[in-house]
Amino acid sequence: MASSSSLHLSQALLARAVYLHGSSSSDRVSLSFPSFSGLKSHSTCKAAAATSSRRRGACPSTNVVRAAAVETLDQTTEVSLVEKSVNTIRFLAIDAVEKANSGHPGLPMGCAPMGHILYDEIMRYNPKNPAWFNRDRFVLSAGHGCMLQYALLHLAGYDTVQEQDLKEFRQWGSRTPGHPENFETLGVEVTTGPLGQGIANAVGLALAEKHLAARFNKPDNEIVDHYTYVILGDGCQMEGISNEACSLAGHWGLGKLIALYDDNHISIDGDTEIAFTENVDQRFEALGWHVIWVKNGNTGYDEIRAAIKEAKAVKDKPTLIKVTTTIGFGSPNKANSYSVHGSALGAKEVDATRKNLGWPYEPFHVPEDVKKHWSRHTPEGAKLEAEWNAKFVEYEKQYSEEAAELKAIITGELPAGWEKALPTYTPESPADATRNLSQQNLNALVKVLPGLLGGSADLASSNMTLLKSYGDFQKNTPEERNVRFGVREHGMGAICNGIALHSPGFIPYCATFFVFTDYMRAAIRISALCEAGVIYVMTHDSIGLGEDGPTHQPIEHLASFRAMPNTLMLRPADGNETAGSYKVAVVNRKRPSILALSRQKLTQLPGTSIEGVEKGGYTISDNSSGNKPDVILIGTGSELEIAAAAAEDLRKEGKAVRVVSFVSWELFDEQSDEYKESVLPASVTARVSIEAGSTFGWHKIVGSKGKAIGIDRFGASAPAGKIYKEFGITKEAVIAAAKELS
Amino acid sequence: MASSSSLHLSQALLARAVYLHGSSSSDRVSLSFPSFSGLKSHSTCKAAAATSSRRRGACPSTNVVRAAAVETLDQTTEVSLVEKSVNTIRFLAIDAVEKANSGHPGLPMGCAPMGHILYDEIMRYNPKNPAWFNRDRFVLSAGHGCMLQYALLHLAGYDTVQEQDLKEFRQWGSRTPGHPENFETLGVEVTTGPLGQGIANAVGLALAEKHLAARFNKPDNEIVDHYTYVILGDGCQMEGISNEACSLAGHWGLGKLIALYDDNHISIDGDTEIAFTENVDQRFEALGWHVIWVKNGNTGYDEIRAAIKEAKAVKDKPTLIKVTTTIGFGSPNKANSYSVHGSALGAKEVDATRKNLGWPYEPFHVPEDVKKHWSRHTPEGAKLEAEWNAKFVEYEKQYSEEAAELKAIITGELPAGWEKALPTYTPESPADATRNLSQQNLNALVKVLPGLLGGSADLASSNMTLLKSYGDFQKNTPEERNVRFGVREHGMGAICNGIALHSPGFIPYCATFFVFTDYMRAAIRISALCEAGVIYVMTHDSIGLGEDGPTHQPIEHLASFRAMPNTLMLRPADGNETAGSYKVAVVNRKRPSILALSRQKLTQLPGTSIEGVEKGGYTISDNSSGNKPDVILIGTGSELEIAAAAAEDLRKEGKAVRVVSFVSWELFDEQSDEYKESVLPASVTARVSIEAGSTFGWHKIVGSKGKAIGIDRFGASAPAGKIYKEFGITKEAVIAAAKELS
Repeated sequence: MASSSSLHLSQALLARAVYLHGSSSSDRVSLSFPSFSGLKSHSTCKAAAATSSRRRGACPSTNVVRAAAVETLDQTTEVSLVEKSVNTIRFLAIDAVEKANSGHPGLPMGCAPMGHILYDEIMRYNPKNPAWFNRDRFVLSAGHGCMLQYALLHLAGYDTVQEQDLKEFRQWGSRTPGHPENFETLGVEVTTGPLGQGIANAVGLALAEKHLAARFNKPDNEIVDHYTYVILGDGCQMEGISNEACSLAGHWGLGKLIALYDDNHISIDGDTEIAFTENVDQRFEALGWHVIWVKNGNTGYDEIRAAIKEAKAVKDKPTLIKVTTTIGFGSPNKANSYSVHGSALGAKEVDATRKNLGWPYEPFHVPEDVKKHWSRHTPEGAKLEAEWNAKFVEYEKQYSEEAAELKAIITGELPAGWEKALPTYTPESPADATRNLSQQNLNALVKVLPGLLGGSADLASSNMTLLKSYGDFQKNTPEERNVRFGVREHGMGAICNGIALHSPGFIPYCATFFVFTDYMRAAIRISALCEAGVIYVMTHDSIGLGEDGPTHQPIEHLASFRAMPNTLMLRPADGNETAGSYKVAVVNRKRPSILALSRQKLTQLPGTSIEGVEKGGYTISDNSSGNKPDVILIGTGSELEIAAAAAEDLRKEGKAVRVVSFVSWELFDEQSDEYKESVLPASVTARVSIEAGSTFGWHKIVGSKGKAIGIDRFGASAPAGKIYKEFGITKEAVIAAAKELS
Repeated sequence: MASSSSLHLSQALLARAVYLHGSSSSDRVSLSFPSFSGLKSHSTCKAAAATSSRRRGACPSTNVVRAAAVETLDQTTEVSLVEKSVNTIRFLAIDAVEKANSGHPGLPMGCAPMGHILYDEIMRYNPKNPAWFNRDRFVLSAGHGCMLQYALLHLAGYDTVQEQDLKEFRQWGSRTPGHPENFETLGVEVTTGPLGQGIANAVGLALAEKHLAARFNKPDNEIVDHYTYVILGDGCQMEGISNEACSLAGHWGLGKLIALYDDNHISIDGDTEIAFTENVDQRFEALGWHVIWVKNGNTGYDEIRAAIKEAKAVKDKPTLIKVTTTIGFGSPNKANSYSVHGSALGAKEVDATRKNLGWPYEPFHVPEDVKKHWSRHTPEGAKLEAEWNAKFVEYEKQYSEEAAELKAIITGELPAGWEKALPTYTPESPADATRNLSQQNLNALVKVLPGLLGGSADLASSNMTLLKSYGDFQKNTPEERNVRFGVREHGMGAICNGIALHSPGFIPYCATFFVFTDYMRAAIRISALCEAGVIYVMTHDSIGLGEDGPTHQPIEHLASFRAMPNTLMLRPADGNETAGSYKVAVVNRKRPSILALSRQKLTQLPGTSIEGVEKGGYTISDNSSGNKPDVILIGTGSELEIAAAAAEDLRKEGKAVRVVSFVSWELFDEQSDEYKESVLPASVTARVSIEAGSTFGWHKIVGSKGKAIGIDRFGASAPAGKIYKEFGITKEAVIAAAKELS
């Protein structure tokens, strides 16, 4: 079985490491640590021994990291200095949480060793340019432990996290918020905190790397080449989204994704025994991952190093390194308990921890030798970037076409005139479902947008999302651009967030039925918060889908996204509006766009336009004069044609009727007061809206005297036309309402 | 490793079964089937052979089901009759989908054998009383295949699915909607279709059984004793929710949960190879399940029987039976392809399938011998229920107290005077967070409501949901009432739906931070649709949670649930309103209640009341007369005290001010026009609302001339008071707005 062999391999490696260092069992339990800075540090061992009997931290007696064990470390580092650095990380976290009297010290204290090794020994980055393209990516999926990341960024020399920032942890306007936020802190790749999102983002980051490498690397120039590292905890592991994303990571063979699982057996409610007794190793093996267990994550630096080395050697599978740690390591009275998870230790316990770990310094102090040790990352990072820049110059010379494409993805600059690729339609164009029109747009855009790629959650043939000129992104064809997410909406959304945040020029799209945004809402909210311009292609957007019935018919979804900040909810009515929606979605790289698209055929309406969509709401037809219609009919999506038909009838009866398409409330809100008045004059209170969804929110548009026609109940299973009629989403209803009001 | 042993066990059993029946390899490939009804049926074998080379259906040469293999079958049934019944199921599905020209024939055609065996041989139910308490539960998690379930209910004699109902499949007003809906069709236990929900519901049903059995069974009277069966597909397996729920099922050791996994290797986008290559068996073993593989689910009746027998024998683990089938089995040209998944076969292919399977009958015909065979379930079901009723009479005699409790859970009748247990508060009661007041309510209610049980997604100490007089529901203590869900919000919600639908007297509650309703929204929507009165205890309901920042601060969530049909969104302001919210939640057994509760302390306000909450919106203070205040201030939850404080100041300046608590919009909507006018008189347009959330929707309440104070951006990480001030959610802002308007 694959499982046992991969575990055996790692155990063998670790056993060898222990053997090389000549430790005996008595060494490991009772011998004191080598001293540093004149302080006795055997207390560290005591701390480890004082905690869980199940997970005793063994104290290795090694003095020096053997260069052989860690390929990226080019000089040996004294264990004493490593430990001092690790304790610096611990105390920066302890002190910041203490000062804020809020935060999560437990994870940083337990994960400081792996954090140190990643940022000091393994990862390639340039602290003075956090956006350097070819950097290794790091994601703290267990985002509550953000002080770990802030401490590491601080030590590594990122300007965004200086001492003052640490002192302002969790305060108004600081760059060190309560969870890692990429839009607040350069050096943070993604926004985490909601559990499981980060590991799924990391799958997206690793997908992006694998895709670009396959597309752009040349035998003589591997211009794309970085790893994605993650630290995730028990909470992330319990969330379904992580299983979804990790199943895909295994399927895609993302060999450069290395996840360190902080296996501390404690969650907020206590020991994980109360709710989490599955065999995580075995599950990950089932998902196609390589799995390694580091038994002593507290002080087993060599174990951690060997595991990462092994992980990097496995090219065809992602690796999960289960690192068993003690939460709150070093705290004599709170380690290994939930009490250290999410609250400040308290002055007394901070003192006790200082004593226990032999830490004589003032809060927030970084010892000089630690500072000096880490200072090399600034020149080294600059060098890494300079080398890569030189490599890119070579690449550009030899492969100018590819270089231009790659550059567009790296910079996010849209090719000049890209929008000319958008298809246009006339009222004579055949009636069609907006989901089909969407596919025309996607296939037109992919020819001009090098960063466009995406797919559906197993509904490609219903969502109409296939890029016809490309194959599938798969393990052995990662250069392709159709991504097959399987029935994993939540993972899909979070993976797209990762792709979008990998490089500004990526424009990921993903698709499912609109109602199933409920499965991925947490990921969509993160798109909005973390400014990831993901395009959500959401078809079957109303009762218009018919027979599948109420489980599949969205009702409240339009309203629910209109209420979500920094989100563009677009519901185009026909071909031109679909093209307009794509134009808006492509341009808006810092907010997600959700396109609600019909299953059923819709007429191409006179008066619709791309420019109209860009304004959010606009008049498509009007027989009034002086901005004084008798009544304004407002529709979106598939109901705009109903409003237009009603207007035609009303006009025949002599009414002055304006028809307004309200394709995006957010965009309309952003227009000038003059423009808004030109579309919805305050003096015209006779307004009727029609939309096959909840009327919730429409009263702001139609006003106290207007009427909102919609559906404030669940749908039904029947042919679509029948449901429309039974639910009163009809021309007749609009006409009746209009007559009542005007 | 546990994995291999469980597989070996099942393989051994199957091998023995094959041996007993004396088939040879040549038999299995080339021999024709035994004939039935004078028709040659060797074509069945051709159909199997014509399909996937990877999953050839072997054709067993057995004639008679050995009684030894199936404990519940008390007489032998001719294989020919079994096969005829199976084909009846197939054609009822084919014909109904064909007539509707809409639906999913593929799954029923592939799963008909396991469906037949479950409903004809294994399950205990009473078709004339679908609600009989001790029935085995069946969940079709792959809900799109609902024609399988309708065909089975029809054959089994359920009055809800008669021939006419099958002919009205997916039509307006029919009892056979496009996905199984418990509220439309008696005999359907839960509402499925959104993938993964059903298996999680089934975990809830099995939890409910295990809990009741542990609580009420006596050595001499096992009054609670049934199984929960599920059929789920590849789609369910890919969804994260199923991993969450199945991890818990393994943790809890739900031995009477038996899931049949329709392993047909086809999903909508094609072969599962494109997105789903994980080792499902191994994953389930990792989750603590017993796993069995039935290699020939198409015609291997004995294999299926043996697997279910084995599953029932495993008492301490749930069982996954992987049943390899051919989707659309019997269709010569469409079987084993996605084209048979979700569309009618078409007249030509229906004919070809009739020919292929040797089916000469008219559409919707049930052959007489099949009808006769199934007819026994009506008397047998009546007998089963009568026996159980007699058992209950005995139980009542000996254990009257327990019997009364169990009866309350079975019938859903609330104990007289239960509401007296609700705590009450006065303005002098200490200020407290509504999450703490919620815990007082839960602990008071659990003493009077025998069906109340629940817990949190690893936030019990933050959500304040522990029932202090009970221990944890765990594998070995299933009689307890605190459920530990781990960090699995989506699974939690769906499990609670299952508990609620197990018996009318169950009142499950579950909890997380309000913002993480995003993780479980699909399950909450199913609560609303399927009429499951789950209580959602959602704490940390605004920016008032402070430092955790925008990832944790709900903004749009109140609006998003107010827009969801059949959902009660309650946001109590203090102790009395929290008690009122619980009263509403307990009474409303057919719709879910979501309680948004504060992390921060709130004043006990004069004027709040339980009765007020029941009206949704009500006046808590007013110094006006004649229903003509100068201004109406409207608040909810933690902002009601701000409105009250603003009113106090305004009144000092001589204003006539009414303060209205708007704790539940839905309940207010249900009041009479007179009542509404008494609270919000149409003539008073000076209205100011304040709520620390999106203003979306508030314009309906405050009107075109009113002002809604709220937050239409994401939150921030800082102490709560600071955020309130910076975001303008203040008394001063209310006063300023009130003065502007009045």
